[in-house]
Amino acid sequence: MRVRVVKVPLGDRTYSIQIGEGLLARLGPECRRLRLGNRCALITDATVARWHAPAAEASLRRAGFDCLRVTVPAGEKAKSLGHLEDCCDQLAKHRLERKSFIVALGGGVVGDLAGFVAATYLRGVPFVQVPTTLLAQVDSSVGGKVAVNLKAGKNLVGAFYQPRLVLCDLDTLRTLPRREYRAGLAEVVKYGIIRDAALFRRLEGDLLRLLELDPATVAAVVARCCQIKAEVVGQDETESGLRAILNFGHTIGHAIENSAGYGKYLHGEAIAIGQAAAAWLSQRLLGLPARDADRIVDLLQAAGLPVRLPLPGARRARLLQAMKLDKKVSAGEVRFVLARRLGEAVWGQSVSAAPLDEALAAVAGPAPKRNRTKRS
Amino acid sequence: MRVRVVKVPLGDRTYSIQIGEGLLARLGPECRRLRLGNRCALITDATVARWHAPAAEASLRRAGFDCLRVTVPAGEKAKSLGHLEDCCDQLAKHRLERKSFIVALGGGVVGDLAGFVAATYLRGVPFVQVPTTLLAQVDSSVGGKVAVNLKAGKNLVGAFYQPRLVLCDLDTLRTLPRREYRAGLAEVVKYGIIRDAALFRRLEGDLLRLLELDPATVAAVVARCCQIKAEVVGQDETESGLRAILNFGHTIGHAIENSAGYGKYLHGEAIAIGQAAAAWLSQRLLGLPARDADRIVDLLQAAGLPVRLPLPGARRARLLQAMKLDKKVSAGEVRFVLARRLGEAVWGQSVSAAPLDEALAAVAGPAPKRNRTKRS
Repeated sequence: MRVRVVKVPLGDRTYSIQIGEGLLARLGPECRRLRLGNRCALITDATVARWHAPAAEASLRRAGFDCLRVTVPAGEKAKSLGHLEDCCDQLAKHRLERKSFIVALGGGVVGDLAGFVAATYLRGVPFVQVPTTLLAQVDSSVGGKVAVNLKAGKNLVGAFYQPRLVLCDLDTLRTLPRREYRAGLAEVVKYGIIRDAALFRRLEGDLLRLLELDPATVAAVVARCCQIKAEVVGQDETESGLRAILNFGHTIGHAIENSAGYGKYLHGEAIAIGQAAAAWLSQRLLGLPARDADRIVDLLQAAGLPVRLPLPGARRARLLQAMKLDKKVSAGEVRFVLARRLGEAVWGQSVSAAPLDEALAAVAGPAPKRNRTKRS
Repeated sequence: MRVRVVKVPLGDRTYSIQIGEGLLARLGPECRRLRLGNRCALITDATVARWHAPAAEASLRRAGFDCLRVTVPAGEKAKSLGHLEDCCDQLAKHRLERKSFIVALGGGVVGDLAGFVAATYLRGVPFVQVPTTLLAQVDSSVGGKVAVNLKAGKNLVGAFYQPRLVLCDLDTLRTLPRREYRAGLAEVVKYGIIRDAALFRRLEGDLLRLLELDPATVAAVVARCCQIKAEVVGQDETESGLRAILNFGHTIGHAIENSAGYGKYLHGEAIAIGQAAAAWLSQRLLGLPARDADRIVDLLQAAGLPVRLPLPGARRARLLQAMKLDKKVSAGEVRFVLARRLGEAVWGQSVSAAPLDEALAAVAGPAPKRNRTKRS
């Protein structure tokens, strides 16, 4: 299979995303081609390390790099300032210098933490993303958002810091638990909703092939998602406008993650519920056709993702509270990304308390509150 | 007294340094003029808070800002990732948003910590530096270097993040302990050595007026130092070359701070010893006239700064070890900034073990090892 290359156009910080099979073996030569320094640290988690660290390190060593492995615990709890400090302490102990570089090998958690390490250790060293989950490949590894969590919420401390290369080895997806793979599909569906109706239709048609990890389908879909993200990030790196559309489903999704405690829902699962609620709001407030709101919920469900959130009144209040801590809050008002139609999202939509509460009630019910009757 | 204004020319991130008396009262109106958001956090330390926080907050409130005070302990230990987390937790708890801003009120420690908070909280919020020590006014508040320490060394985790404004209120220097004021003079002397022989001569002539805080002398000297720093930072923001000259005396100075444990020497004191050693190396390796090397040591001493470091052999080895952790190390080699003549420094000078050891021996002796005999 050929390697697909997507450029993220950011002036002198432009970089490539490579998408294909067997790319781990190319990690060393690609880092060499970028003229990175001779020493590096491979930051990974305990789970990913078992599967993929030996191949990554072998490739780096064959290319002549001196490579330190730094392993963090698997799971969201690694995204803390404490783990940032642990990582930096290890880099300092091994005398990594400004010309040394960091390789992030893992999912979104590893990429976010390792990227923030790279952004801040010695005030910034180069880094390379090697995402090993679908979610990281189509979303978190691209675009330079890196961060750790605070008690008060996700990603509240971080930076915009671009990698020098993103290497998406599709083979790594085969070692991914099914649940995590499906969670990644939530972000894939998002790209269709916010920017590409044709992609959305393709997902509806190719969902089985995608769920079966058919190589050609996965490659094409991952590449298309990366292309959309690259386009958006190229136009608005630091989220002063357009980039906000990437947060479709995320305002409610992050609040679900925060108020449920990290770990109960995977990020993609929380985002799926958030997208179902955002679809409801889009229909109510922006005239998204009811049929399309249904298609969103249907596709997420067909991908095996949750779209309901059974929520007693007290917990709904906690959820609304969590939403107010979102980084997208402006002057105390929660702003939403909503879809006008499939393939077109608008950002900065202020939503008052009443429809927001209704949207949460709509996704809280035991049976889907569907528009389907209107279609028959 | 008129307010002196120095511009730091960094494209769309250009900002002003204002230098004068009574400027704390102008903090609120200046922030308003910059169209910063309505909410801010004033980060300060316990000591500075007593003296200056009420005036700063009163000015901000009069200008209509809602202001949260965040107080960290006084001293170098506040520059930790733990305190970064404490600060960010407080900002999150009080719902500071992306448009909110941070005011750093204090010396170098507060500026470095608060600046790093501003650089990373919500991936970056605007910030304003209000330096209250001489060292912070002429050096650390200008140029956007922000950082915290690791166990392994100073400033090993940080960012380049520019303030929107620097307000140097010369009145605040009157509340400064004499020892800290003198420590700041070490950086002042540095500017003369690396970039401005006329400033150096002026310092030799005006030292008493400077030590007595004569307003006109202090204003002129602080403004000239800021001008030099602004020029250098404007040409090389991220220290890929020229900016390194600002580290004259710092390679050894940082190592002294690290190996002595933070707190024994003030930064400026360690830098003074480092400059004495660098003067020795400059004379030996770069042909700095012996007379000028003496003038450097004399001026530092006349300012009440240490220029000797009594150091048994075992501790000298620890010092050399600490030096290898410096951020300026490249390919394992310690690089120095040295002076070719007064007013002209060169960076990236590799110094082998022998002369480095001799330089440390030279500053270790009980009596100054002077060239003065050659002058008579």
